[in-house]
Amino acid sequence: MVWPENVGILGIDLIFPSQYVDQTELEVFDGVSAGKYTVGLGQKKMGFCTDREDINSMCLTVTSSLLEKYKIPPARIGRLDVGTETIIDKSKSIKSVLMQLFTPHGVTDLEGLDTTNACYGGTAALFNAINWVESSSWNGRLALVVCGDIAIYAKGAARPTGGAGAVAMLVGPNAPLVFDRGLRATYMKHTWDFYKPDLTSEYPTVDGKLSIQCYLNALDNCYQLYCEKARALSPTSPVVGLDTFDSVIFHTPFCKLVQKSLARIGVNDYFMTPPSKRPARFPGFEKFDQLALEDTYFDKDVEKAFMTYYDEVYKAKTAKSLLVASQLGNMYTASLYSSLVSLLITHSCEELMGRKVALFSYGSGLASSLYSLTITKDATALGSIMDNLKNIAPNLEKRHKLTPEQFCAVLETREQNCHKAPLEPSGGIDGLFPGTYYLKNIDHMHRRQYDRVPK
Amino acid sequence: MVWPENVGILGIDLIFPSQYVDQTELEVFDGVSAGKYTVGLGQKKMGFCTDREDINSMCLTVTSSLLEKYKIPPARIGRLDVGTETIIDKSKSIKSVLMQLFTPHGVTDLEGLDTTNACYGGTAALFNAINWVESSSWNGRLALVVCGDIAIYAKGAARPTGGAGAVAMLVGPNAPLVFDRGLRATYMKHTWDFYKPDLTSEYPTVDGKLSIQCYLNALDNCYQLYCEKARALSPTSPVVGLDTFDSVIFHTPFCKLVQKSLARIGVNDYFMTPPSKRPARFPGFEKFDQLALEDTYFDKDVEKAFMTYYDEVYKAKTAKSLLVASQLGNMYTASLYSSLVSLLITHSCEELMGRKVALFSYGSGLASSLYSLTITKDATALGSIMDNLKNIAPNLEKRHKLTPEQFCAVLETREQNCHKAPLEPSGGIDGLFPGTYYLKNIDHMHRRQYDRVPK
Repeated sequence: MVWPENVGILGIDLIFPSQYVDQTELEVFDGVSAGKYTVGLGQKKMGFCTDREDINSMCLTVTSSLLEKYKIPPARIGRLDVGTETIIDKSKSIKSVLMQLFTPHGVTDLEGLDTTNACYGGTAALFNAINWVESSSWNGRLALVVCGDIAIYAKGAARPTGGAGAVAMLVGPNAPLVFDRGLRATYMKHTWDFYKPDLTSEYPTVDGKLSIQCYLNALDNCYQLYCEKARALSPTSPVVGLDTFDSVIFHTPFCKLVQKSLARIGVNDYFMTPPSKRPARFPGFEKFDQLALEDTYFDKDVEKAFMTYYDEVYKAKTAKSLLVASQLGNMYTASLYSSLVSLLITHSCEELMGRKVALFSYGSGLASSLYSLTITKDATALGSIMDNLKNIAPNLEKRHKLTPEQFCAVLETREQNCHKAPLEPSGGIDGLFPGTYYLKNIDHMHRRQYDRVPK
Repeated sequence: MVWPENVGILGIDLIFPSQYVDQTELEVFDGVSAGKYTVGLGQKKMGFCTDREDINSMCLTVTSSLLEKYKIPPARIGRLDVGTETIIDKSKSIKSVLMQLFTPHGVTDLEGLDTTNACYGGTAALFNAINWVESSSWNGRLALVVCGDIAIYAKGAARPTGGAGAVAMLVGPNAPLVFDRGLRATYMKHTWDFYKPDLTSEYPTVDGKLSIQCYLNALDNCYQLYCEKARALSPTSPVVGLDTFDSVIFHTPFCKLVQKSLARIGVNDYFMTPPSKRPARFPGFEKFDQLALEDTYFDKDVEKAFMTYYDEVYKAKTAKSLLVASQLGNMYTASLYSSLVSLLITHSCEELMGRKVALFSYGSGLASSLYSLTITKDATALGSIMDNLKNIAPNLEKRHKLTPEQFCAVLETREQNCHKAPLEPSGGIDGLFPGTYYLKNIDHMHRRQYDRVPK
């Protein structure tokens, strides 16, 4: 009747489509100014799926990949949670589809379902898995958390902020990435910044500016609450701020917003610093003293000053975590966890050992949390996770580049076939990565059949 | 670092629409044989919503009602989970909509989201809430679990199995209804028995016969696993069977299936009884010895024999729990918990004290669990829950009866307006119960505005 020790992430895997469109080429194709997507948004490439892949197939792929890499027999799994906002059935869960990987092994006693609120569903699924491990219903087995999305937008300003990918995580005790206990700060609120009320379409309804304001406001609230909780846990060391973390990673709608967000934490630190101590810590920033935090979301002077001031901190604590996001785009629920993967594949074992990582999860509508984990100092345990991610960077390079015309044609096909039945997908199978599950067909009763590319 | 004691349900409330259609009248209207719905399905009345109510408004209504009845200030709530399969937005959760009841009170640190797999989402939400109370992230506050659905079907055989309702539950330690620890038996599998792949419609795709087989098969598996877990917990008292429970309540697609299901547990007991002991316990049932359990789902002889044999047990342990379901129909995620409400309002405090209740939750696709709770012997604590349910039976009588023609017209209006924006609902407000939230309008951006009937 005590919580197990060091509950955290024992394994993590990421999968993504085998094709992408280049953001520089998309700028030319869309007739926008050079750098609008690549510098303004900070995006290099965007992954997308043909009609051969849907959210079920992606989750089947990443779940199989994780279990195979880590040689985890299905019987070692005791719970399975899914987070997504790519809804292709209002009732039947992706979790139930994933049961095809477990039932043949006699594994059917798996609590957990699909969890939804925009990009936050993966974090909710993860929290539910952690809570289960600490609860009386834990059966000593491992929890599996799967999150993924296909993010696509109607033609227009938001289209280059799409992406696609899925992440699976193994959760249990004695993990190399340990969640800090008592340090989850959550902020939830009713907003209409981004939502998907048109069920006939794969595209969301977006109020772009409101969504950025909601994101930054949620970050403010979560960060302040995190600091409050951290101070309450360690009242003798009351200084909690950006210095507390060795890495800070974020849900990434686009990379530039993350750079602004790291600086935004700095803005919070500024306002949390007693006025008398500000000149020593933030020299030259006296002009901001009269501002209120909530009035600064679109204040270009504040943004520029803090982004410049925190540029080195950004490079040290956050920039490398954007590797995958810059190459794939927004993966919605998987986005934050792709940043964790990026962190792990862009640092050496020595650099990672003992690191304290802050994670900010945001889902429009809105749901958000800031929490933290500590990376083990055990090089062997950490090395296993790192070894199992060695294929990620090479696979990003192995993808096929399609032209913006081809990309748009794929989206048009998806538009035409959205929720159609029966359906024979037109996308090719040859280019898929080995081990990829794909949609074979949809029958007249809307039942989806999948097959797998040999490994 | 120990789990709190007696985690369970501290409060429960149920809301339903203020109109219904009579199943006898529906039989005449549909031109089916008399008794097809009322005897064959066991249904008396069916609740339904006009376009003035949607799943958001129903969840707002039941959440407000519970908090007000129990005089719970929002600040006492530390987590909020929702279970539903009535999806009106692919991204924005009902949870985020419910935050309107909490944010004005400064309550924003509420973990939990919406959870989906057919009728099982409420149970998953409840399990997540229980796990949270036992986890390191519990903050000493109460969890709130909300589940509800609007179940409507296309014209045809399934239409009389619709219904509508929502349940809210307060979860925390020292509860009058205590969940038995270590006794959750879950069975999950990939099936296509009932699902909602046509996102343009509110109606499901159903394979009725397969769904009944899946339901009964899931019950078999959950019950056997429950017995196995119970025996492991108490190896000295190895007899675990139907006698273990004082009440057995079920997810209720229609009432007749529940009567068959209670008998189905008896069939399991029969096959779990060593052959040598069967004649004494089940006299005259030797003819069934050669059968295999999995071949008996539609065996009329077995069904009739066991329903007759267990008729008194059904009346004593299950029948009264169908009061609400027979009056409202299927409420999907709320159905099982409406049976718990029925149990509480159809027995005296003395009858309920100390009762052990088995609960079977089923969601097509499929996800299912059988678990149990024990009712307190503390009459004061139990009395509070019972007092707060005193309005249920009178309110069922206060509803307005609409004709089958009016019922069909309402469904046609819903079909035409499904996901339309902007929209001014046509349904009246005058007939709604006091305290009911209702849809004021949907604007051109699909944003839904709600108002409330004064209490």
